[in-house]
Amino acid sequence: MLVDVHIDELATPALVVESSLLDRNLDEMARALPGSRCRPHVKAHKCTALARLQAERGHTAFTCATVAEVEGMARAGLGDDVLLANEVVDVGRLAAAVATGARVTVAVDSAETVAAAVAGGVREVVIDVNVGLPRCGCAPADAGHLAELARSNSLAVRGVMGYEGHAVGIEDRDARVAETDRAMALLAQAHGDAGGELITAGGTGTYDINGVATEIQAGSYALMDTAYGKLGLPFALALSIVATVVSVAPDWAVADCGLKALGMDHGNPTIPGAAVWFCSDEHVTFAPDQPLRVGDRVRVLPAHIDPTVAYHAAMHVVDGDEVVETWPVDLRGW
Amino acid sequence: MLVDVHIDELATPALVVESSLLDRNLDEMARALPGSRCRPHVKAHKCTALARLQAERGHTAFTCATVAEVEGMARAGLGDDVLLANEVVDVGRLAAAVATGARVTVAVDSAETVAAAVAGGVREVVIDVNVGLPRCGCAPADAGHLAELARSNSLAVRGVMGYEGHAVGIEDRDARVAETDRAMALLAQAHGDAGGELITAGGTGTYDINGVATEIQAGSYALMDTAYGKLGLPFALALSIVATVVSVAPDWAVADCGLKALGMDHGNPTIPGAAVWFCSDEHVTFAPDQPLRVGDRVRVLPAHIDPTVAYHAAMHVVDGDEVVETWPVDLRGW
Repeated sequence: MLVDVHIDELATPALVVESSLLDRNLDEMARALPGSRCRPHVKAHKCTALARLQAERGHTAFTCATVAEVEGMARAGLGDDVLLANEVVDVGRLAAAVATGARVTVAVDSAETVAAAVAGGVREVVIDVNVGLPRCGCAPADAGHLAELARSNSLAVRGVMGYEGHAVGIEDRDARVAETDRAMALLAQAHGDAGGELITAGGTGTYDINGVATEIQAGSYALMDTAYGKLGLPFALALSIVATVVSVAPDWAVADCGLKALGMDHGNPTIPGAAVWFCSDEHVTFAPDQPLRVGDRVRVLPAHIDPTVAYHAAMHVVDGDEVVETWPVDLRGW
Repeated sequence: MLVDVHIDELATPALVVESSLLDRNLDEMARALPGSRCRPHVKAHKCTALARLQAERGHTAFTCATVAEVEGMARAGLGDDVLLANEVVDVGRLAAAVATGARVTVAVDSAETVAAAVAGGVREVVIDVNVGLPRCGCAPADAGHLAELARSNSLAVRGVMGYEGHAVGIEDRDARVAETDRAMALLAQAHGDAGGELITAGGTGTYDINGVATEIQAGSYALMDTAYGKLGLPFALALSIVATVVSVAPDWAVADCGLKALGMDHGNPTIPGAAVWFCSDEHVTFAPDQPLRVGDRVRVLPAHIDPTVAYHAAMHVVDGDEVVETWPVDLRGW
């Protein structure tokens, strides 16, 4: 949707994406991991308009976390090769993903998830392997058996998946490298047993570290957040939330960006030029370095991009002070 | 919307409301604070179907935090007396609230917010007073002047508002009482200066403590959460999130209810019969007391109701295992 709006005309709180920074982030990833070496994870932005820019840069295979994301990507014509990198046992929802006509590959880590994939009409799977993060994934030693079970049920096993989520956020690069190496040794072992052409893993924090994965499931790199911002990566904070100062006291100010506009699991957001005190449902209270007036606007930088974007219906692409496009956040929900 | 579905047929994660517990909570509040003594805050549930049940119990005046909530309440025919208990300087949005035809009263705490109210066509305001929470509200000593300013601009001043948000969550009741009393002494002083028939304040944690407010803006009492659950109030946890176990390891299990289904500012959710370890975007990892199997369902209790509900498009009302109604969460956004 093309619009012709000044940024100050946006109703707040408003997600805004700096067009030039987004482009730079997307270009950098396309240079570092061209084509199928990066399988962008759409869970970080939940926006098919943004996914299209990733596809235009050569990344035409995508990662999704939910069936709703698969459905949305298919609707947008971006379903050439979609990996549902998550365990799903809801046969009806799996069937819905298959019914989109997209090429859908699903993660499995148990006999139950294999059975659900079969029942849902899924044809291709990856074996999800636990590489150290206590979440989904079979034990590395079980990957071979599980692949066999899948094949014996007429599923094509495209390879293995193993997300080093316990490594991606480690601030010290050497420690991050060491943890990633440990994790990928497990995944390589599992791949030896399970076979297939794909070793799919990784994230924004390990995109240039993970030497085992054939493809990296990076998502946050496009928009970034303050948590990943601490890692010294060549990706800029392209997303912020424009908020309006609605109240000013001698020692603090209050803007209209609160808990319902921000993922809070990584802690408070950041406001450049201010110390953030706390957030309430619809407010952030902060101490600005310089006095602010009611009606002034501030930029709020989220600590965690994924659950922040999921609260918003749209993001606005800006070039300086001009809103050049408004994109629906069309992959929300499940 | 009437439905005929077994709870196990719901796609997960799914917000579910226990009909009998909701009724009990609503009845208890209507008994304790009948009619206009309670002005339910819709920000906690963002659902006009639920607000209608509150209106049917005699609470026909409501509190809103956003213009979108005002618009939705007006659309639902629940706009008899809606207090936008928040500072808004966006004249266009204020005008949109007025244009709904609802009786809209807006909080003001500065010359700027008075000017915005006038420009937006607002006719009635309350003077928002800071009673100890570092957020919005003028200094108590300024309330009289601000009321004068509002009246000189042809605004009707219905009274004062002062939210003791720093008191509502204090677990020790005596300490909660003491903090509330301190806050309300300030509000009473401001009311003496500003005049008007309303002294609007309070929340679920102080609904039976606040002896100064003429009306209590309680919201959480209807659905509740684990934070308010610690206060020993006569309100039951009526809302939970049904999640499906998608992966099981020897020491933990994983269900499909993560950061995008839960407000996380008050910390991790609770799963009865389990120790919650952490949440990821689409997962909760937990150690169950008894072994679980893939496909089993668990109930996840959010720590903070307001930002949890704001992630969901619908809530399902259940009577035992039967889904008796599905309500849109129709007051989301801004």
